[in-house]
Amino acid sequence: MGASASFYMSWCVCINVGLLCVVMVVFWNWRWRGGFAWDGSEAQFSWHPVLMISGLLVLYGFAAVLFRVPWGWSQKKIAWKLVHAGLMLAALVLATVGLYAVFNVHSTLNIPSMYSLHSWVGMSAVVTFAWQWFLGLVGFLLPCSAQRLSHYLKGIHVWTGQAVLLLSLAACISGINEQLFFLFFFFSLPAEALFANMLGILIVAFSSLVFGILSKADWRRPNANTNDEAAPVRRIFSSLNVKENVKEN
Amino acid sequence: MGASASFYMSWCVCINVGLLCVVMVVFWNWRWRGGFAWDGSEAQFSWHPVLMISGLLVLYGFAAVLFRVPWGWSQKKIAWKLVHAGLMLAALVLATVGLYAVFNVHSTLNIPSMYSLHSWVGMSAVVTFAWQWFLGLVGFLLPCSAQRLSHYLKGIHVWTGQAVLLLSLAACISGINEQLFFLFFFFSLPAEALFANMLGILIVAFSSLVFGILSKADWRRPNANTNDEAAPVRRIFSSLNVKENVKEN
Repeated sequence: MGASASFYMSWCVCINVGLLCVVMVVFWNWRWRGGFAWDGSEAQFSWHPVLMISGLLVLYGFAAVLFRVPWGWSQKKIAWKLVHAGLMLAALVLATVGLYAVFNVHSTLNIPSMYSLHSWVGMSAVVTFAWQWFLGLVGFLLPCSAQRLSHYLKGIHVWTGQAVLLLSLAACISGINEQLFFLFFFFSLPAEALFANMLGILIVAFSSLVFGILSKADWRRPNANTNDEAAPVRRIFSSLNVKENVKEN
Repeated sequence: MGASASFYMSWCVCINVGLLCVVMVVFWNWRWRGGFAWDGSEAQFSWHPVLMISGLLVLYGFAAVLFRVPWGWSQKKIAWKLVHAGLMLAALVLATVGLYAVFNVHSTLNIPSMYSLHSWVGMSAVVTFAWQWFLGLVGFLLPCSAQRLSHYLKGIHVWTGQAVLLLSLAACISGINEQLFFLFFFFSLPAEALFANMLGILIVAFSSLVFGILSKADWRRPNANTNDEAAPVRRIFSSLNVKENVKEN
């Protein structure tokens, strides 16, 4: 099987496992946690796991592997960078609303925040992610981004991007584990806990797929196309002009 | 800074952060958890976090990045494969004893096992690791390992190796989080919880360093030396014979 076919197979599995994680966390909170609301109640808390898993883990993972899709290699990298940045921004917005949901519930119910390791790891994930997004915008997209800065930043961008996913994975697993302890402190495994544990295992599987896709050397965008790291937004317009000129000729 | 210098700097940080994790988990259990014993008491439980973090995370991480050390690239790969396999076996033994410690305490104190997501993720890590070690032995070290099988297995070996580290990270963070909930259920952050949370953040930092080192293309063992994937143990002897012959000539 060629590199391209084996990529598409893995990518397809990755996307389906990711979507299944979202479906499962929605079903968990709809079926057992009283559904969804925005009134400071426990039903508002339901938004927290749903938005964190959808944004900080699944959408983030989808956006992370985007440059590996062979279909995009023959196209302008700048277009894929914009889609990457857009998906990441959507992931960041979902995660931020997910954080707000839980802080708001805590303040309404007079529960303190930020004492557990789960909260420390999760907050580190979101703060690092926000910083990463901002640096990515300045380094790779804005017209002011310099070629030299982009080249230097790329290594850090890849490394930090992996760190966010690791933080996110650890936050999701510890969060599910913590919530089940709150609910079933007396060492039992009712249907809800069984279901949420299975969601936890799927979350690790999804993260492994994302890391697997990222690590495979054959699946990287070929070098020929990666020299335009610093292609800032203004180049879109100049490249469009070039195309028009070519047509005219 | 050259690829080699920047590798050694990152490797040095990685090793120190890993060792600090071990020192911190020992100190935590010595200072606040009643120290260490092997009598079915809570002091026996102390061995669980110490052995899992030392074996399944830190030693495992050290062994995972071993082939990236440039110093070893000019040497026979088979020697480094034996060190890699040896360190991994030590890590697996530590993790197995660490599992036994907690199952034994649970059975003495009549506490059920394997109901939490932490236990599911942790057990998946150890079982996947044991299977991975066995497959590695058969595929890359035993005299019977065929070149074709080795080549096919290598991609899976790298992928599964990352999955074990992800499972291990998630198990460590959810385990610390869970233990602190057992101890301080009433939303507080005493010195012990503060210390253990800091350990948790360091654990994520260590994992990020390992993944960062593994992902950097410049730090991979050059292709020229990686064609001997299937170099089985018998080749050590044949290569030694070759050396002796050279000397005699």
